[in-house]
Amino acid sequence: MSDNRKHVAGRHFLQIPGPSNVPDSVLRAMAQPVIDHRGPDFPELTRRILANLKAVFRTDSHVFIYPASGTGGWECALLNALSPGDKVLAFETGHFSTLWKDVAEKLGLHIIWMPGDWRHGIKASLVEQKLSEDYDREIKAVLAVHTETSTGVTSCIPEIRAAMDKVKHPALLMVDAVSSLACSDFRHDEWGVDITVSASQKGLMLPPGLSFNAVSEEAMSRSKQSQSLHSYWRWDAMAENNARGYFPYTPGTNLLYGLDEALRLIHLEGLDNVIARHARLAEATRIAVSAWGLFNVCMNEKEFCNSTTAVFAPDHNDADELRRIVLERFNMSLGTGLGLLKGQIFRIGHLGDFNELMLMGTLSGVEMGLKLANMPYKPGGVQAAMEFLTR
Amino acid sequence: MSDNRKHVAGRHFLQIPGPSNVPDSVLRAMAQPVIDHRGPDFPELTRRILANLKAVFRTDSHVFIYPASGTGGWECALLNALSPGDKVLAFETGHFSTLWKDVAEKLGLHIIWMPGDWRHGIKASLVEQKLSEDYDREIKAVLAVHTETSTGVTSCIPEIRAAMDKVKHPALLMVDAVSSLACSDFRHDEWGVDITVSASQKGLMLPPGLSFNAVSEEAMSRSKQSQSLHSYWRWDAMAENNARGYFPYTPGTNLLYGLDEALRLIHLEGLDNVIARHARLAEATRIAVSAWGLFNVCMNEKEFCNSTTAVFAPDHNDADELRRIVLERFNMSLGTGLGLLKGQIFRIGHLGDFNELMLMGTLSGVEMGLKLANMPYKPGGVQAAMEFLTR
Repeated sequence: MSDNRKHVAGRHFLQIPGPSNVPDSVLRAMAQPVIDHRGPDFPELTRRILANLKAVFRTDSHVFIYPASGTGGWECALLNALSPGDKVLAFETGHFSTLWKDVAEKLGLHIIWMPGDWRHGIKASLVEQKLSEDYDREIKAVLAVHTETSTGVTSCIPEIRAAMDKVKHPALLMVDAVSSLACSDFRHDEWGVDITVSASQKGLMLPPGLSFNAVSEEAMSRSKQSQSLHSYWRWDAMAENNARGYFPYTPGTNLLYGLDEALRLIHLEGLDNVIARHARLAEATRIAVSAWGLFNVCMNEKEFCNSTTAVFAPDHNDADELRRIVLERFNMSLGTGLGLLKGQIFRIGHLGDFNELMLMGTLSGVEMGLKLANMPYKPGGVQAAMEFLTR
Repeated sequence: MSDNRKHVAGRHFLQIPGPSNVPDSVLRAMAQPVIDHRGPDFPELTRRILANLKAVFRTDSHVFIYPASGTGGWECALLNALSPGDKVLAFETGHFSTLWKDVAEKLGLHIIWMPGDWRHGIKASLVEQKLSEDYDREIKAVLAVHTETSTGVTSCIPEIRAAMDKVKHPALLMVDAVSSLACSDFRHDEWGVDITVSASQKGLMLPPGLSFNAVSEEAMSRSKQSQSLHSYWRWDAMAENNARGYFPYTPGTNLLYGLDEALRLIHLEGLDNVIARHARLAEATRIAVSAWGLFNVCMNEKEFCNSTTAVFAPDHNDADELRRIVLERFNMSLGTGLGLLKGQIFRIGHLGDFNELMLMGTLSGVEMGLKLANMPYKPGGVQAAMEFLTR
């Protein structure tokens, strides 16, 4: 029996840390006919989406939508706000912070790179120290990944902002909230974030293809001084067109239909409820992981992540072998280890359109996979998660 | 928080014993534009469907497709094959056998009704006895429900046929395979079934709306003598039109698109594999039920059912209260008790487009529901099912 045949029946469990499962109603919304993006019906769609999207970022300032992946959103933020040669302070919290740094380097920025162990978030004291040493205020931006999808580790953005404010440093705070938006508590305005980068395929429950920049007035203002040579990513053109309900070039129409529906679902459930649901399912996952006797990559419980739990395979076994067995036998995709953690860890995505019984299917697949892989573990993770969910 | 809000996130677990979960590709197929059912493209669709459908019934004779529910399929079989006043032998194995008997009574048939306890299938010895007592061969048909969706009890069709053959009785054997087709082993030709009634919403993984009659040559021949007054259900008109790739009246075009795709999926997986998968997931379910210390309605292990497990709520608790809690808290629909068993049992549907991790989510929902309902049970059903699925 080929793998292909085995996997004919029932739903695939897409439990990577994004792209996440897309709700049926979002898929249906995306199946609507394409309309003229310069036509009279488009502004109503644009305006409704932007209003509902700002509520998810918890911002009253600007949110711009690009037909792009999250990687494009990083570039967009850096190009608009900074100029080649500008210094930026960045922190190695995992694979994606490293990739964002690589993008910044390619754009000619000067990176002050703070190494990390991939198991902790950004230390606010280090932000304070590095900025206080920057006597000439040459650092133009601090780059922080809110929840590191590669490790399931959260950095505390309000503490970073507080550190910046404490030393009265004018650098912009740029945050990657790709895997935290609509999963973890995130507050663009209240937390004093200048630019938030996010994308469609995580908590927003869409396929990949849209990227976002939420932009403070301060960042908008500074972007006027940018010497970067770029065109596609320009906030100014986006703002000007959005004001009329349009886009400066062809938007991703059908992904916007999907976004419109996903935002409706999020606000129907209530953003606070969405985040509480993620927190609860993430805690149930960690309880299962502990019961199995396995170790979370994230070492500090204050830095646990609502969207992803990254777990070391037991006793240095090959985590990708476990993933292979789980996929082949139970039709479930778990996230692979990235960068430094390749082969050491597997990642359980518990984000987006997800509920208790989908989680129980997911945890059962991991527990059965550990058994079939002959890796040392203690049975009982599934049982422990059920106890938590019913207590 | 209203129930409506609670249920926004993630997939609903539709674990009633049908309608079953519909695969995405079937839903997509049904979303194709309606075409002219008298146009040149229709015969290819009709012929492919009929060929693939006959393979599922395991018959080389006729299969007729009606825009109707399974209840219509019962009526169709009775009207075509019999005449008002004809005697039929029928067996009370549960709610659906009782309903089929009620339909037969309304059509003016004379029912010889064999009462049952709803926990056992048809006894072949009783078939033999009743037919051997029918000296004047007045009984024109034996009605048998293959797997009783209301109880999860299977009647052994080959044993019934053998009993009929043993006494050389000419009655037609009519079988309801609504919830067994493509779930349990079923062989229209090899088992000597004259008329098999089935429907779209169980093992065939479609929404409700199509009903089927598989018809032997003997039944076709006898239908020519029927004195029933009817028009919609006429096999002869159906056969004549089907031969040209058409239907005598407007067919359910988009359900046919879905059927075409569902049959493709079944034959891609392989009918034997489909049935083996159902048998395995049903066994895992029963292992969980036993581990919980609960009782299966079906008392004879030879009569267990691949599509449905009907379970008594513990200690005479209200099974519908358990179902209510499971729906409200875990967004899962379990089947209610029907007829005599109302309030006493819940039914777990494990049929159609279903796999291991969907089952584990389902069983976890039942186990957590039992806890939240404060009903006496032993934890460990989920664990026992995982052990079975990985042994």
